[in-house]
Order: sequence, then C-alpha cells, then structure tokens
Amino acid sequence: MKLVIVGGVAGGASAAARARRVAEHAEIVVLERGPDVSFANCGLPYYVGGEIRPRDKLLVTTPARLRERFRLDVRTRSNVESIDRAAKTVRVRDLDTGREYDESYDALLLAPGATPLRPPLPGVDSPAVLTLRNLDDVDRIAARVDAAARVVVVGAGFIGLELAENLVKRDRKTTVVELQDQVLPPLDREMTTPIVAALRERGVEVLLGESAAAFEPEGGAVSVTLQSGRRLPADLVILGVGVRPESRLAADAGLDVGQRGGIRVDEGLRTSDPAIWAVGDAIEVRDAVTGGAVQVPLAGPANRQGRIAADNILRGADRPPARYRGTQGTAIVGVFDRVAACTGAAEKTLRRLGLPYRKVYVHPAHHAGYYPGAEGMTLKVLFDPATGRILGAQGVGGAGVDKRIDVLAVAIQAGMTVFDLEEMELCYAPQFGSAKDPVNMAGFVAAGLVRGEHPQADMEVALDGPPDDRTILLDVRTTKEFSEGHLPGARNVPVDELRDRLGELPRDGRILAYCQVGQRGYIATRILLQHGFDAANLGGGYRTFLLHRPG
Amino acid sequence: MKLVIVGGVAGGASAAARARRVAEHAEIVVLERGPDVSFANCGLPYYVGGEIRPRDKLLVTTPARLRERFRLDVRTRSNVESIDRAAKTVRVRDLDTGREYDESYDALLLAPGATPLRPPLPGVDSPAVLTLRNLDDVDRIAARVDAAARVVVVGAGFIGLELAENLVKRDRKTTVVELQDQVLPPLDREMTTPIVAALRERGVEVLLGESAAAFEPEGGAVSVTLQSGRRLPADLVILGVGVRPESRLAADAGLDVGQRGGIRVDEGLRTSDPAIWAVGDAIEVRDAVTGGAVQVPLAGPANRQGRIAADNILRGADRPPARYRGTQGTAIVGVFDRVAACTGAAEKTLRRLGLPYRKVYVHPAHHAGYYPGAEGMTLKVLFDPATGRILGAQGVGGAGVDKRIDVLAVAIQAGMTVFDLEEMELCYAPQFGSAKDPVNMAGFVAAGLVRGEHPQADMEVALDGPPDDRTILLDVRTTKEFSEGHLPGARNVPVDELRDRLGELPRDGRILAYCQVGQRGYIATRILLQHGFDAANLGGGYRTFLLHRPG
Repeated sequence: MKLVIVGGVAGGASAAARARRVAEHAEIVVLERGPDVSFANCGLPYYVGGEIRPRDKLLVTTPARLRERFRLDVRTRSNVESIDRAAKTVRVRDLDTGREYDESYDALLLAPGATPLRPPLPGVDSPAVLTLRNLDDVDRIAARVDAAARVVVVGAGFIGLELAENLVKRDRKTTVVELQDQVLPPLDREMTTPIVAALRERGVEVLLGESAAAFEPEGGAVSVTLQSGRRLPADLVILGVGVRPESRLAADAGLDVGQRGGIRVDEGLRTSDPAIWAVGDAIEVRDAVTGGAVQVPLAGPANRQGRIAADNILRGADRPPARYRGTQGTAIVGVFDRVAACTGAAEKTLRRLGLPYRKVYVHPAHHAGYYPGAEGMTLKVLFDPATGRILGAQGVGGAGVDKRIDVLAVAIQAGMTVFDLEEMELCYAPQFGSAKDPVNMAGFVAAGLVRGEHPQADMEVALDGPPDDRTILLDVRTTKEFSEGHLPGARNVPVDELRDRLGELPRDGRILAYCQVGQRGYIATRILLQHGFDAANLGGGYRTFLLHRPG
Repeated sequence: MKLVIVGGVAGGASAAARARRVAEHAEIVVLERGPDVSFANCGLPYYVGGEIRPRDKLLVTTPARLRERFRLDVRTRSNVESIDRAAKTVRVRDLDTGREYDESYDALLLAPGATPLRPPLPGVDSPAVLTLRNLDDVDRIAARVDAAARVVVVGAGFIGLELAENLVKRDRKTTVVELQDQVLPPLDREMTTPIVAALRERGVEVLLGESAAAFEPEGGAVSVTLQSGRRLPADLVILGVGVRPESRLAADAGLDVGQRGGIRVDEGLRTSDPAIWAVGDAIEVRDAVTGGAVQVPLAGPANRQGRIAADNILRGADRPPARYRGTQGTAIVGVFDRVAACTGAAEKTLRRLGLPYRKVYVHPAHHAGYYPGAEGMTLKVLFDPATGRILGAQGVGGAGVDKRIDVLAVAIQAGMTVFDLEEMELCYAPQFGSAKDPVNMAGFVAAGLVRGEHPQADMEVALDGPPDDRTILLDVRTTKEFSEGHLPGARNVPVDELRDRLGELPRDGRILAYCQVGQRGYIATRILLQHGFDAANLGGGYRTFLLHRPG
C-alpha cells in the first residue's frame, strides 16, 4: 500500500502519523507546498504580539522528526500540480529546483487546507497589505510591525480580533474594519456587544458595517479607502476576511466540489473517487446540528478527520468505515480580559433555515458570588421548543466561559435536552463554580419555558417600548435600579411589593415582567400568573436589553 | 395545601422557594433548628482563612428575604422533636423560649442535613476540639484560630484539606491526620500524590494511616495522642472525619432508613410514608453509575433534589412525578495551586463491587504547549472494557482540571463512551485548550484499547520490576530521560532507534513498553506488534509510575 498525502499541516500530519501507527509497512509520502509541516496555525497572532517566543515554538513538529519517528517520506516545498486519477499518479513540482515528476499512489489523501481571501480591490497587492495563514505570512508581518505605528485589520472574525489584541499589546494604533454590523460573525450580534466594548476600551477603533474599497500606496505606507469614502492611513494592513478551501486541485481532477468550494466527501471522508480521501479546511462538512453542508475551518476537526481518513484508507474494506460525525463549529476567542465562545447553531442560522427554536439568556457569575473574584458572564442557549433538544449555545464574559461552552458542546454532541442541563452534576467548590452552575441555571430557565411553567417573551419585542397598547412592561427591580436605567416605557413595581400592589396592574392586558437578569422577573411572572394575570417574563432581563442596545 | 419543611439550608431552602413559585397560595412553613437559613456551607474554610470577608457574605439569603419575596413562614431556632404521622403533625420546640407546639401538615419535607461525626474518643468534648459545619462552628473556630499557633486537622477529606490550606494562609503550623493511606478518600490513591506533595511543599505535616486516639487538655490547648503513640501538641483541633445523615427524626417516626443511616426515598424523593418527602445530605441516593445505595453529601444534588421534591409535592398526582436521577459524586477541591476533582465511580469502588473496568491515564497540558503558562494535569478515565461506556474520571493538576472533569461528568450523565470522547469538539484557542483536547487524548488512548489497536498493561504490574521472567520492561524514552530515573529493571531503547534495534529484543517473551506519558510507548507498541512481537504499552508512562511511587 502506498499512501500519498497532499498537505502536511493539521489534517495531513495527523493522518500521516496515524497511518504509520496503523500500517508499519505502508509507504507513506507527504507532499507539502510550504517549508514547514504541522505548525501552530492558531498561535500566529500571539507570535505577532510577542506572547509566543521564540519562533521555534510555532513548529509543532518538523519534517526530520516525522521522518525519524514515523518513517514518513516528507517532502516540503513540493507542490502537487495535478492528479491523474486514471493512472493514479500526482504531478509534483519541487519549488526549490523547479523539477517536476510523477508520484504514484494506491490511495491519495488531500489535505491542502484553505487560503486567505484577498478581495480583488485596487492596491490589494501592495507589500503593506498582508494576510496571516502560515509562517511565511507571520514573518512578513513581523518584519513590518515594528515600524508600523498604525495598523488596519480588515475583518473582525476570530483571527482579526486576536490580531487586534496583539497589536494593541505592542502599542500599535489599531483599527478594525468589518463589513457586517457586528464582530465575530459566527456569533449572534448581541452576544458580541461586550467584545466590541473591550476592544474600544483598549483604544481599538472598531468600524462596523464598513469595508475596504481600495488601498493606495503612500511611501512605504498605504492609505485605505473605505466604502464610506473615509480614508485610513496605515503602515500595515492585515486582511482577515476569511478563507477559501484549496480545492482547485480536486476540482481540476474532476472530483465533486460543493457550492462553497469545499471538496465533497462521504461520511468516511472519501471523495467521489474511491481511491481519494480528503480532510481539513479544504472539505465540505456536515453541520452536526442542522445537517447542512458547511465550510468550517477548525483545527480540532481537521486533526480528527485526519485520523479517521487514515483508518479508513489503511484498514481495508473488511471493516466498516470510521465515520466523521460532522462539525459543530465549537470556537472560542480571547480578547483582552474577555472571552467569547460558541458551539452548535447560532440563532441567525436557525432563523435563516426556518428551524423552530427558543432561546434563553442567563447572566451568572463564573463561580460562587461569595468567593472573591467572581466574574460575570452571559450564556445564551438555543433549543427546540417541542423537545427541548439543545441546538446551540454562546457565551461571553471572562473566566469560565470556555468551560460552560465545552459542557454545552458535549450536551449537543450527546443529543441532550434542556432537561438534562437541569440535572447536570458539575464540579462545585467556591472558586470553581456554584451549587447551581451557570449551565444548570440555563437549564432551569429553558426547561421551565418548555414545560410551560415559565412563559417568556424575547427581549426583541420590547426594545423600543411596549409592543402594543394592551401590553405593559413591568420592571420588578428596586426603585433604585429602575432609576438608573430601564426599558423604554416601563413601569416599576419591585417584586417584593408585587403581591400588595396587584390592584395597580391591568387585568385585561398583558404584562411583560423583567428584572436585571431574569430571576426576579420569573418570580414575578409566577406570582402574576397564579393571580390570574396574563404575564410573561422578558427573557434575560435588563442585561439582555443592554446587549441589544448598548447605548 | 400546607407544606412543612424541616431544615432551611440547601435542599430545604431550594424546595421552599420552588414550592412558592409553583403554588402561590400554598401555606409553606420552614422550620430550621439553627439561627440561619441557606448559608454558604462550602465557603466556611475560606472564611477561616480570611479569603471571604465580611461574615455576611456567607449568608446566601436571610429569613427576612425569604419571608418578603416568597411569603414563607420561616421559623429559625425551631427544632422538630418528633413526627406524628397518623395525626400529620410535627412537634416543634422553640429553642429560644423552650416552648413546644404541634404544627400540622398536608405534606412534610425533611431536609435536616447531616452532622459532623465526633468519634467517641477521650477528650473529644474539649473546647479546643471543634468541627466545621455551620456558622456557629465557624465562629467558634474563628474565635480560637488567631491564638492557635499549632492546629491539627483530623481527616483529609475535601473540607479537611481546604481547612489545611486556609490555616497555612494564616501562618498556622498545620498537621493533617488521616486514617486511610491517602488524602481525599473519594479519589484513587495515586491521583492524590500531587496533592500530598502540594501540602508538604507548603509546610503542612501530612500523617497518613494514622488516627487520633485521645485528646488531653493542657491549659487552653490540647495534646492529641495518635494511634501510633505519637503526641501532637495543638492549640486547636478540627475534626473533619465525615458526616452522618440527620435521620433520627425520620427513624423515630418509623420511616425506612438505609444501612448507612440515610432516609430511604423513591425516585420521586418520597419516603416510605406517602405524605413525607426527604432531600439532601439526610437521604440515601442511588449512585448514578453503579446503581448502589450511597450517602453523598453535596450541595448541588441537595439543591436539585429540593426542586424536584417541591414539584412532586405541589403539582398533584395527575402529573407523573419528577424523577431524581441519582448522584454521580462530582466533586472538586483546590489545595494551594493544585486541583483535584472526580466524577462517577472510582477504581477502588469498581474493584470492590467486582465490576469490569479498564483505565487510562493521560498527562497533557491544560492548553497549547506553545502558548505561555501551560500547566500539566493528569486525567484518569475508567470505562467498561466491552462497550467503552465511561464509568468514572478523576483529574489532578492546576488550571483546567475543573473543565475536563465537568466535560467527563456530562459524558457519564449522557451514557457516552470513550469513542464519543475521541470525537468531542471542544473550544480551542491557544490559551484555552489544544486542537486535541486532554479529553480527546484520553478518548484516543481508551478507544484504541477497546478496539484492540493499543494493548495496554496497567502500571501496577511493573512497579517493582518485570512481573515475570518472560517479560521485559522497555523504556523507549531518550537515554537522557532514562538516566534521570526509570522503572526498576527496565531496558532502554529510544523509540526513534527502535526499528533499527529490533534484533536486541526477545521474540519469545513479552515486551511492556513505556515512555514519559504514554504516547511514545504507544508508537513503540504499534511498531513492535507489527513486527511480530508480543507487546503492550504500560499505560500512562513514567509519570503514572511516579504517581504510584512518589519516591
């Protein structure tokens, strides 16, 4: 058996090492276009910021190590130009010598990754307009960043924001330009409000709903013209507007490629050619929640895909193929002292697909409030209103957000419901959590909603005041809290006075109660319902309002 | 409906608040023996250490708040002396006035908690020998600790070790005495090795396999005589040797009580009397993994049980009862900069019950190694060797242990297998995790074992050298690593030289390979197997050896 692997970074390197462990006697050739294998892609922004030093730390492994330990025939600077599927050969070009040759295969694994998008704008090829994907890129940025007082980052995705943080740590004046009306497009907009605030607090200029239209060289610098006409002088521009799957090789060879450009594979990660498999950022995957075909460039899935493909290639047809279960899109980003993370479907995705869902927000502390250092967070959980099955979750805050999103990621993987969240038995000591963990709290709220005990309205209906004439917004916080800010048109009856002041409330209309985070609103709603009022809780309270309307 | 609740701390207070939300018009009486309701039990050691200040922070809520918000009839300093099940009344004694009276009920909920054990040893009633369970206790300890230069903590459970840490923070000379040969008895012994080391590094004297036999007052101080005959002078002794369920009231009333003294309840938390329910530390629960009847005093389960019991009491017989699913025993403790946590069944429990299991150890960093600040941890995962179902997990290390044990707790709750661990898609950015998360790593190792790709022997067979004449211990680390310490009787062939030195190895015996953490041992095992040797990996490598034999 001779296995040829195109690409030696995440999926390719994982597949190669796994292949050797499975098949000691197979011939395994790894063809990598770049000079490095298996480098720490996700560490690049932190190398720009100086957090990671020396540069060697970015090398997860080296060609020499792979040769020695796994007896892999690793060839870097080797570009695969084409595939001859009938002959089962690939055409390889040695980028150092220019020599071309054919390499035969019994099985071919494509792991070419993805390339940063460079929109075809005037001046985009200026030497001061860079992208960040590999070590060559990071060297180019590092060479310029010392002298770059003003940096513009185009694109406010995960890498764009990590770059912004790291540029600020190096005291660069940093502007982030994002086409959408929010940062971190995989998350729902309101959940990104604290991240925008964190960026602005640290002096990052964040321009939303704005895009770059042209880049004009000015000496060694560049002037960025925005769609709005504004011009931003910059010494360095970094484009972080997404990646496109490197599927040209596959497409040229006639393999099936999806609408978004990803190589199409089956559950066993085999392409439309039975002798060719594909993994990583170059493939189209199944969304584990919605079932749709998506492009999700993430390191974890790429590594797991590499293992699965290697197993399926080398273990022969007598075993049922290992199955890739799809991608949930679990992702996280740290921006200064704040953290945002997500897993599963976003609300915007569910809405776009027309899938039924409900949502809850909770705003708990990351550990017991009575122990010093508790940091607040917001968790949003999306679920099926009929069954309670969890569809997605997002978190924003500080410490402990990663833990809760991981817990919720597992719950989604397991097909659990909001009723299961109520019952989760998680670690509790005062410095680690609470007897009622944030995840339990989200479960209580959501399960109460599904069971019908806890009628809720989404905050969106009340952002501009009562949605209609027969509805009143009832703020059940203290008069002091109310006086410091409240929903437009709201009336104030503190929850602890509510039972004595029921006579002030309309019996012929609807009452939407709210408090700061939702708990007193819930208690008020239960009181009102049991006294015969038509009432619901405005989910997530005033804090959720402030996420939608940061003022 | 009139509900009387005996006990107003965790389970009782949760039940009372839930009951009011469910039934606005019910009469709800809470009878609490102590002066406080719902206090932060788990924060008490940190109040001793001065981390939590002022004392008010320990009060999660107050009787006044419960009366105001939930219209509860809360009576503190009110001891329930007896239950008349036929008349449906309880006899209440007002501890301040001495007055006794009968209170009738339609439904009775018992949430009396547990009492610290005070072994009947000579001198145990000395005023310098205290326990820690409630605010009265913590006041007594606080009153003595300033003047107590030497403190002996008897019992090295979770609270005992939290106390030890907090006493050291206050510069008390602290000795911990533990009857068992390990600290933290719910964990397996080897997993507690780093915790013992942390205690000793900070100057705590840890005496294992030792117990207190007598306490002799000496002025205001006390001399502790140990079973071994050794005497420890102390200004303060704190007993943390466990708790017993407060089930006398229930037993006197003829309710079923389990062998360990816990009140017996059904899945709906109803006792053997259909008008009486019970929750919290006083009840016997079902172990969610083994199915056995156990006593597990934990705050999270108590709170959830309170909610469930309230629902079942107040929603009437027309709805199916809410079901308590059992307790997993998820628990965590921080000891200085180290953390230990567990969930599900321990190895010792599985062995005692004769249940089939296998185990794996991994020793990963808590986040990407290339990002600064990565802290090491050890994870142990126990699973069914036939199906791969996860039975238990333990972790010890620093940052990120809580997250992995929470993830594994959810996996156990969901009935997941080690194959599911392989596929988990968890948060990855360099400061939060790794593309292959520690949980994935444990899954890879365990799944390889179940699939038969990765034969493993437990480290226990090799602690004293090769287990028999036909077995060799093969250290596949570098010669430098080998020279710094290795298993007794091991031979050294570095993994990267293995293929060239196969001739040195016996074809008629068995080879147990190992490295530092298990990964190179795994690669070596795969090489050896495919070259026809009888080989297995010594699970968890030299680090696991050191946990068993800390030198």
